[in-house]
Amino acid sequence: MSDTLLIRGGTVVNADRETRADVLCVGGQIAAVGLDLDAPAGATVVDAGGQYVLPGGIDPHTHMQLPFMGTVTRDDFYSGTAAALAGGTTTILDFVIPDPKQPLMDAYRTWRGWAEKAASDYSFHVAITWWDESVHADMGTLVREEGVNSFKHFMAYKNAIMCDDETLVRSFRRALELGAMPTVHAENGELVFLLQQEMKAQGVLGPEGHPLSRPPAVEAEAAQRAIAIADVLNVPIYVVHVSCAESAEAIARARARGQRVFGEVLAGHLVVDDSVYRHPDFAFAAAHVMSPPFREKTHQEALWRGLQAGHLHTTATDHCTFCAQQKAAGLFDFSKIPNGTGGVEERLAVLWDAGVNTGRLTPSEFVAITSANAAKLFNLYPRKGLVAPGADADLVVWDPAASKTLSVATQHSLGDFNIFEGRTVTGAPSHTLSQGRVVFAQGDLRAERGAGRYLKRPPFGPQFTALGKKAALHAPTSVLR
Amino acid sequence: MSDTLLIRGGTVVNADRETRADVLCVGGQIAAVGLDLDAPAGATVVDAGGQYVLPGGIDPHTHMQLPFMGTVTRDDFYSGTAAALAGGTTTILDFVIPDPKQPLMDAYRTWRGWAEKAASDYSFHVAITWWDESVHADMGTLVREEGVNSFKHFMAYKNAIMCDDETLVRSFRRALELGAMPTVHAENGELVFLLQQEMKAQGVLGPEGHPLSRPPAVEAEAAQRAIAIADVLNVPIYVVHVSCAESAEAIARARARGQRVFGEVLAGHLVVDDSVYRHPDFAFAAAHVMSPPFREKTHQEALWRGLQAGHLHTTATDHCTFCAQQKAAGLFDFSKIPNGTGGVEERLAVLWDAGVNTGRLTPSEFVAITSANAAKLFNLYPRKGLVAPGADADLVVWDPAASKTLSVATQHSLGDFNIFEGRTVTGAPSHTLSQGRVVFAQGDLRAERGAGRYLKRPPFGPQFTALGKKAALHAPTSVLR
Amino acid sequence: MSDTLLIRGGTVVNADRETRADVLCVGGQIAAVGLDLDAPAGATVVDAGGQYVLPGGIDPHTHMQLPFMGTVTRDDFYSGTAAALAGGTTTILDFVIPDPKQPLMDAYRTWRGWAEKAASDYSFHVAITWWDESVHADMGTLVREEGVNSFKHFMAYKNAIMCDDETLVRSFRRALELGAMPTVHAENGELVFLLQQEMKAQGVLGPEGHPLSRPPAVEAEAAQRAIAIADVLNVPIYVVHVSCAESAEAIARARARGQRVFGEVLAGHLVVDDSVYRHPDFAFAAAHVMSPPFREKTHQEALWRGLQAGHLHTTATDHCTFCAQQKAAGLFDFSKIPNGTGGVEERLAVLWDAGVNTGRLTPSEFVAITSANAAKLFNLYPRKGLVAPGADADLVVWDPAASKTLSVATQHSLGDFNIFEGRTVTGAPSHTLSQGRVVFAQGDLRAERGAGRYLKRPPFGPQFTALGKKAALHAPTSVLR
Amino acid sequence: MSDTLLIRGGTVVNADRETRADVLCVGGQIAAVGLDLDAPAGATVVDAGGQYVLPGGIDPHTHMQLPFMGTVTRDDFYSGTAAALAGGTTTILDFVIPDPKQPLMDAYRTWRGWAEKAASDYSFHVAITWWDESVHADMGTLVREEGVNSFKHFMAYKNAIMCDDETLVRSFRRALELGAMPTVHAENGELVFLLQQEMKAQGVLGPEGHPLSRPPAVEAEAAQRAIAIADVLNVPIYVVHVSCAESAEAIARARARGQRVFGEVLAGHLVVDDSVYRHPDFAFAAAHVMSPPFREKTHQEALWRGLQAGHLHTTATDHCTFCAQQKAAGLFDFSKIPNGTGGVEERLAVLWDAGVNTGRLTPSEFVAITSANAAKLFNLYPRKGLVAPGADADLVVWDPAASKTLSVATQHSLGDFNIFEGRTVTGAPSHTLSQGRVVFAQGDLRAERGAGRYLKRPPFGPQFTALGKKAALHAPTSVLR
Repeated sequence: MSDTLLIRGGTVVNADRETRADVLCVGGQIAAVGLDLDAPAGATVVDAGGQYVLPGGIDPHTHMQLPFMGTVTRDDFYSGTAAALAGGTTTILDFVIPDPKQPLMDAYRTWRGWAEKAASDYSFHVAITWWDESVHADMGTLVREEGVNSFKHFMAYKNAIMCDDETLVRSFRRALELGAMPTVHAENGELVFLLQQEMKAQGVLGPEGHPLSRPPAVEAEAAQRAIAIADVLNVPIYVVHVSCAESAEAIARARARGQRVFGEVLAGHLVVDDSVYRHPDFAFAAAHVMSPPFREKTHQEALWRGLQAGHLHTTATDHCTFCAQQKAAGLFDFSKIPNGTGGVEERLAVLWDAGVNTGRLTPSEFVAITSANAAKLFNLYPRKGLVAPGADADLVVWDPAASKTLSVATQHSLGDFNIFEGRTVTGAPSHTLSQGRVVFAQGDLRAERGAGRYLKRPPFGPQFTALGKKAALHAPTSVLR
Repeated sequence: MSDTLLIRGGTVVNADRETRADVLCVGGQIAAVGLDLDAPAGATVVDAGGQYVLPGGIDPHTHMQLPFMGTVTRDDFYSGTAAALAGGTTTILDFVIPDPKQPLMDAYRTWRGWAEKAASDYSFHVAITWWDESVHADMGTLVREEGVNSFKHFMAYKNAIMCDDETLVRSFRRALELGAMPTVHAENGELVFLLQQEMKAQGVLGPEGHPLSRPPAVEAEAAQRAIAIADVLNVPIYVVHVSCAESAEAIARARARGQRVFGEVLAGHLVVDDSVYRHPDFAFAAAHVMSPPFREKTHQEALWRGLQAGHLHTTATDHCTFCAQQKAAGLFDFSKIPNGTGGVEERLAVLWDAGVNTGRLTPSEFVAITSANAAKLFNLYPRKGLVAPGADADLVVWDPAASKTLSVATQHSLGDFNIFEGRTVTGAPSHTLSQGRVVFAQGDLRAERGAGRYLKRPPFGPQFTALGKKAALHAPTSVLR
Repeated sequence: MSDTLLIRGGTVVNADRETRADVLCVGGQIAAVGLDLDAPAGATVVDAGGQYVLPGGIDPHTHMQLPFMGTVTRDDFYSGTAAALAGGTTTILDFVIPDPKQPLMDAYRTWRGWAEKAASDYSFHVAITWWDESVHADMGTLVREEGVNSFKHFMAYKNAIMCDDETLVRSFRRALELGAMPTVHAENGELVFLLQQEMKAQGVLGPEGHPLSRPPAVEAEAAQRAIAIADVLNVPIYVVHVSCAESAEAIARARARGQRVFGEVLAGHLVVDDSVYRHPDFAFAAAHVMSPPFREKTHQEALWRGLQAGHLHTTATDHCTFCAQQKAAGLFDFSKIPNGTGGVEERLAVLWDAGVNTGRLTPSEFVAITSANAAKLFNLYPRKGLVAPGADADLVVWDPAASKTLSVATQHSLGDFNIFEGRTVTGAPSHTLSQGRVVFAQGDLRAERGAGRYLKRPPFGPQFTALGKKAALHAPTSVLR
Repeated sequence: MSDTLLIRGGTVVNADRETRADVLCVGGQIAAVGLDLDAPAGATVVDAGGQYVLPGGIDPHTHMQLPFMGTVTRDDFYSGTAAALAGGTTTILDFVIPDPKQPLMDAYRTWRGWAEKAASDYSFHVAITWWDESVHADMGTLVREEGVNSFKHFMAYKNAIMCDDETLVRSFRRALELGAMPTVHAENGELVFLLQQEMKAQGVLGPEGHPLSRPPAVEAEAAQRAIAIADVLNVPIYVVHVSCAESAEAIARARARGQRVFGEVLAGHLVVDDSVYRHPDFAFAAAHVMSPPFREKTHQEALWRGLQAGHLHTTATDHCTFCAQQKAAGLFDFSKIPNGTGGVEERLAVLWDAGVNTGRLTPSEFVAITSANAAKLFNLYPRKGLVAPGADADLVVWDPAASKTLSVATQHSLGDFNIFEGRTVTGAPSHTLSQGRVVFAQGDLRAERGAGRYLKRPPFGPQFTALGKKAALHAPTSVLR
């Protein structure tokens, strides 16, 4: 099989513009973008007539093969990335999550091992779940030797992986020094804990207790706290899965002060609401348990507006496929339901349908929030997130006229549930290319186990090069720099 | 000496209006307010012609006789309240501050003992500096038996009296149950701690390091966190010494959501700016060290606007008179300078001059923010904070034409510094009455040691009677109620 | 009949507090408020056991006997004020509305004549619908000789009574000079006009076109414009019938800058939503046509929050009772439906039920927004809006346990529709007193034609005495003063 | 001379990224961008070692050769565009400004004639200064035949070119239909007029009266009004020369609602403050008279933050060079001083120095706000504003180490004043290319009279393709579409 491929007749969409152009891929990279390119001899030709050619999606938030009480999520790195490719996503950023007291490097190596079977390219954020001198040192090793440029902090999950303020402060400070970006799961773990106790004390044991114990104010508080800490320390910050108006507003306020704050939205939070938790069938309700929970419908509009206005930047899924049997651990206590939902395969289609087809987003904005912005923030750009010569040939040929109905019955993910079940969307990939190879074509998934590569991401991305305004504003942080 | 006194010819100012009226005081209470009252036989007559008659000031934030490393502040409960009376303040709310692990009731009894010498009426907020079941129980005893209806939480002072989030959450929850109002000193103690270390590591050892280690974002973070916790738990909250625009905005935002949040401003923060910390004389700079620190001038305008708009409610002083010798503990390390400044005597004059004379505030608004609002929020109203029959005869005859220059040389406080030194103000008390007795007249202070009474404050003040909107909004908190 | 009356055993509620007290009324005024007052010989005694005693309601926005194309609204000054008394409202502020080019004094005298039959006390705002030197002069006469201290400006109703910016600017400037408060009906008349044309061009002719041609942004624009003009000229401003979140936010923002801005909310906007305009019955839908229109439900919460937070200040009704036959003028063109709905009789009960019973408002806050604040802003306080010796004996004995169902069938207003039809409320007046006389008792309305008095309102109310902060901020306006 | 040129060894900066690359220009366009390109035979080679290669600047707001009372500004289209080229700006968008009642097409043809001498490419916004059916028709002709896709509206300049609301509404509506973007000069002309009269009545006749008659609230009002009208009509809008925090906030608020609003900032407003108007030398003060005026320093930070946060989008100059003699028309009346300042030559250097060198902006953000965003919004992208094959070879070789002191003595503009006089900046063009030709090299200006081309700009730019969210939100506007 030749390593040369020509996508002919499409409209190339990048974050900055749309152009009619062919795309020539050679040796896993894009070799040329232009009108009426000639197909080299032996080149595979993909007809993109009437279709768009987009950078492959980047999902900056997945949990493949996540261990949980002796079991793991259904999707491992192979099945999960294969599902991603089927939906047009060609890169995932997953998480290394050390147990408290576990050396970071140990956990990192474990996850690297698990990920070797991945079918798409991938990289890792590393979670900071505890603190001592070894953590400080290992952060340095990870950044300098392993290409990690982002660290995750859970502000929820008390008595498990929750960071206290001291750890947040120390880790953010260290990240600044290393040129790595701190990211946070923003929920106030103490409040969640108290509300869970209160709910259960009042006899609220079912999944309806899940959103009741995690109201928007619990998320907004933590988002504001993390943003304030980052502001004082003058480090950029990325808030994962922003789910409510209050958090989006906190980000917007900080950005309006000139702070470098970035927000991620999950496809699910944009279109699914909290009524799912009141469904009489436990399995249905429990299948939607994730944190932050789905919200009242009114929050969805706030998230869309954030994406339109540019104070929310990326979209992800938090793909994490616990099955019904695993979810049943919380049958009599909602706080014991393992948190997680799928979506890595459906994200692009859901966003196109609800975002572009409704006129909320331009195709270029779609590319920005599904790949380009994530690539920029995690310093993979322009290798990823761009259709241009020299970039990796991770591409989607997107058929805006294709229509399909999303369902667990037809998904490639091994999860046993689909939070978008029954939703008919218009717009879907006809072809996905990874490293210049067609891995999905007209419904035919050709993912290759282990073909994915680990992506090293250099530190000091662009967001680190314009922090200087702080110097003028706050002496303390200028002194720090 | 008769217990009957007539104030004749003045303009009575309450928070809702001004009226020309005489005020008759009998037996320590106001007996009548009206035009042309007859002076009973034997009554003392005070001529208030051309003057205002105001409710005596309430300072809701003082620390008299505060112990510190084996010494105490200069002003004890006698000298401090005597100074207050000289300035027109007739009630103080001081703080019981248990050491971590010290039983609340022990600390409470200690402070009650110290306060017996007070010359004016007084009451106590009790600080929650740690948590266990005994604290939970003692809060109940304090509210139900001792007339305490407010609890203080320090979010700063790591490794000392700082509350962590768990304690905040539990204490706020308990306060709600008891009908007591939580109050917070809002600064993120972890950030302060880190910034202090960083400053010192860089060789910043003098008082100029004090504001650099406590920037506005450090305060705003904590204010937002406390407000969010109160919101989730549906309990009213009072933020002490709001010093910066960012905190004032956080309060305004919460109030705009219908939340019952209240803010206090110190007289010092309204007129003193952070240039004092850069003064070459250590003693001068250190004498201004308090937390939150004085701020850049621009914040002063934000605080005034908050008072005008009604999202800031009370004014106080945080009166706490460490002397130069005590301040010298931090001669080579700003973080060791004991925090505190005076002002209980100057507050009313400073506020009148900078607030009423400039046209920022009406006389009625002046009364609201110097006495009536504090009386309402801490449930002393209408006994205090109002000129009306039945109220305590704690009154100030206020001469709007009197002018004086504030100075340590002429103050009654035993402190050795005056943060308003050299400021000439127009407007000052000609007479102060406490319990119907003239305790200050034309410069002559007649404070009586031990004449002050402990004020029991009942729980469930008015702010607790209109929390219901939450029921409609947030199921979790409605379930809690 | 004696002119002495004792209300015994109730809880007196003022804007600042609640107290158990009897109220003695003599000669049309309150003579005493206190516990266990003796009833003078011959005094009528009203038993208020278990009930509240409130200041009589003030409705600052009514249109009685409003002329329209040769007819007038159903309620004249007698029937309208009688209905008001039945509902506990004892003072109305109506509007003199000159035709463009009509001398203000002519219109004023006409309205004064019409109002002589009023059963309750009343006063007039005067509308500025055009501009020339005579208007400038007449504003002076009205303020100085006739006791008018507020002028109304319609920013909507193009080609009729709409003010252009030039008139707004000149009139606000003149009002400042005179110590009178400008008020505005805030809707951008040009946009309304265009949207009406567009709607009709598209075949939208029925009442559903009414809200479509007046979306919230149309109101918010005008509110912001009027507030900005007032800010630049340094004059206080009062925005009538704030109906949407966007306007409430504009007011809150201005107040947070320290500007003296005040907002009024109609009872209808707090509980009725825009679905009424889509009712299939034209008469039903048309009966709800008023401007600004009823809004989507979500705006109601914003208005309640504004009242709770204190950035909205008064409640009114815009009572204006066009009957079905008059409404039918717009049967084939919604823009021709005369604007107006009733409510003067139901306002207090609706607000108590939806505000106090739900825990949104304390009884004191209820008094503030139904009488005390309007009295203060329009300088009738403490004669009106307060239960205290010396005030007019306009009182309501309010039975919090009384329940009734609101209906056109039982209302006293002569209007033929009730926008609160079928709403069952708990809390209603058992007695209303006007000038010390029982005019409504247990359902028996004893309104007396012509008993109402015209109230002269002095200029330079309290809101004019604290405009000075501007001096410091904006040289131009300081130069103006 | 060959039409082939190679820029070798630089770092190409686009709005999305920086890359080391050579740039080959052939026939006035960019032919290739890549590492180590070979120079074709005969090609001119420009050494960009250690330098950046940027898209040529686009100044979207200039007034060359502006007629005024029988004279014109100093810079005509030749000298003005030549000065632009010297500073790295290769495209200007100037304004056709019809007199009221003048047919648009007449004015358009006049300006087109004047512009034929331009040395750089150019295009025109057309001002709507009056309204009738011919204006409606001519807007269509301009868009469809002449490549105009933006219309300007002056909300100030009463009795001259000011638009009233009716014209704004009609013109915006028409622009939506045509796919053209309305732009506004946002100042409330009625307020300016009144304040000018007041100032002069009080004897304030000098240039210090200029900012006093145009405070920020005057600008913010108009910005809010224009934004609200655009929101209701669902048309994108662009606010020119945003000068104050209040306007920037109005734009940010609208964008946070998802509205397509864009803001422009002038280089002058970012670094010059209003103290210039109080300079004792009339000529100096008058030379700074432009509208909106320079502001208090605090506003500068707000503008920078807007550029950082992305709610302000472009930078311009409003280049308009009235000379001292022309300015002297207002010697005894500041309102008669012709408004205008220069800057087209200095914009890039000032922004680089104050923006990039201080760490406020990344080089990519610099490109975004100096060319790429303007190109996108006015639909010239990717022909302009991008360094990529196929784009016009309008390029700047930017030497980040070059330092120079800005001065009227060394400027190429014919204006007789420089508002940046004496400012030393680091960062300057070493070469400017226009249409692939070196027009400026190491201080040598080689501008060619008449070499510039008129740029036709197609309607329905990208901002028109994502207005759909309105459909869901506001029925009225959805009906309109």
